[in-house]
Amino acid sequence: MSRPIGIFDSGVGGLTVLKVLQAQFPNEAFIYLGDTARLPYGSKSHDTIHSYVVQNIQFLLKYHVKAVVIACHSASSSWLKNPVPFPVPVYEVIGPACAAALKNSIQKRVGLLATKATVHSQIYGQKILALEPEAYFAGQACPLLVPFVEEGLEDDPLTALIAHRYLHPLLQHNLESIILGCTHYPRLLDVFKRIARGSAVQFIDPGLEVAELLKADQQNGQLEVAIDPAAIPIQILTTDLSESFTEIARRIMFPTPLPAAQLVDVR
Amino acid sequence: MSRPIGIFDSGVGGLTVLKVLQAQFPNEAFIYLGDTARLPYGSKSHDTIHSYVVQNIQFLLKYHVKAVVIACHSASSSWLKNPVPFPVPVYEVIGPACAAALKNSIQKRVGLLATKATVHSQIYGQKILALEPEAYFAGQACPLLVPFVEEGLEDDPLTALIAHRYLHPLLQHNLESIILGCTHYPRLLDVFKRIARGSAVQFIDPGLEVAELLKADQQNGQLEVAIDPAAIPIQILTTDLSESFTEIARRIMFPTPLPAAQLVDVR
Repeated sequence: MSRPIGIFDSGVGGLTVLKVLQAQFPNEAFIYLGDTARLPYGSKSHDTIHSYVVQNIQFLLKYHVKAVVIACHSASSSWLKNPVPFPVPVYEVIGPACAAALKNSIQKRVGLLATKATVHSQIYGQKILALEPEAYFAGQACPLLVPFVEEGLEDDPLTALIAHRYLHPLLQHNLESIILGCTHYPRLLDVFKRIARGSAVQFIDPGLEVAELLKADQQNGQLEVAIDPAAIPIQILTTDLSESFTEIARRIMFPTPLPAAQLVDVR
Repeated sequence: MSRPIGIFDSGVGGLTVLKVLQAQFPNEAFIYLGDTARLPYGSKSHDTIHSYVVQNIQFLLKYHVKAVVIACHSASSSWLKNPVPFPVPVYEVIGPACAAALKNSIQKRVGLLATKATVHSQIYGQKILALEPEAYFAGQACPLLVPFVEEGLEDDPLTALIAHRYLHPLLQHNLESIILGCTHYPRLLDVFKRIARGSAVQFIDPGLEVAELLKADQQNGQLEVAIDPAAIPIQILTTDLSESFTEIARRIMFPTPLPAAQLVDVR
């Protein structure tokens, strides 16, 4: 029996990362933790978020995970500022997304769509400039996109109107890459692409980039490859019962069938 | 020195109730508690919300309040199901809103605009039918309105589009009264009125109705009247530091000046 890969987020959004990972690693088992009792993370202090991150990793270790993926951008930010040694590799989404955005940009012109908290934290700009001091960086907060995605309105014309309002000013910066800096935004990739039609900008999905990192680590032996390639069902854990969680989760993971979420206490 | 009236909500929305109360009772002192560390209440269980309500009231009693107003609809619902004796009167918003809606409706046709959690809890329908078994009741969940109000987009045409989508189907029920069943919605009263133009429907603001109840209780001696009619500044307390709280709070309370929120621990 192979050990699963753990992945956590403050809520349901990290399932877009799980979806990518599952597609890229069809033989791996996954266990997903949605810390719904303590969401939202974005508005909380660094110390508070950091303590949640450590608790969530410790909790996932009880399930014998062989690696942990921090899907949440606020949690990744807090981890990047203060990583803690654990007996398994821990992956965050910001570093891989920034590296991919720069690799993809000859002129090093990188943009970011994210929540208000992530944009205000300046973590992406700092990381981009640390990797490439000559880079140009522009961020745009998109506070209304998460609720539209959670309502399942990805294809609604109102969502396109809101997305246009956020993306259009960002496109004026002649960017080559725009990072989808919130776990919900890969759900809007088609909407963003329609709005950006005619520009050469590429959208960076941090989930895909973290998957590349896991693949590299499996190749270089730092991350165990599943020995028993049996289809093991995904396990979904949440810290608060929420009727809407399973509903949104199933919509995101479609057509992969998803079990109902199990209530757990990480503290 | 007169004792203040305490008022609490899970976040910033209850300030619309404070605003009404302050306008109706210019000589009273108010202390407002936003339990931002534990928001949102709506998605949590009855037992959890009820324990928060009791803690918040106990906490406000330390400030020598002479009454407590529960501004939050989820908290009011939990209180209505299980009221607890306290040494000061405790007011919730659902009962007064339902009574006013029925009083205003000859045919007893009452509607509700509210969050998903409030609509699914069925508390308003139950209360309306308990007061008037012959009543007709229709509720409409409006999950996207709160984020638009918190972003300060009350006058944005996108807000009108969203509000129209929610209100238009409700108006087909030939209602006489529609309760604004979420603390944020009085901010959208003008938007709703424009959409309902031509219909005879009246919108019920629960804050105004709870103010009527306080007035009645001051007249019948159940609630102390401020002896010293000096303008005492409003006190604002929150359980989590949030940059956006004071910003949204000042927007809601404008033109009343508001001090910065003080961080408190209610537990």
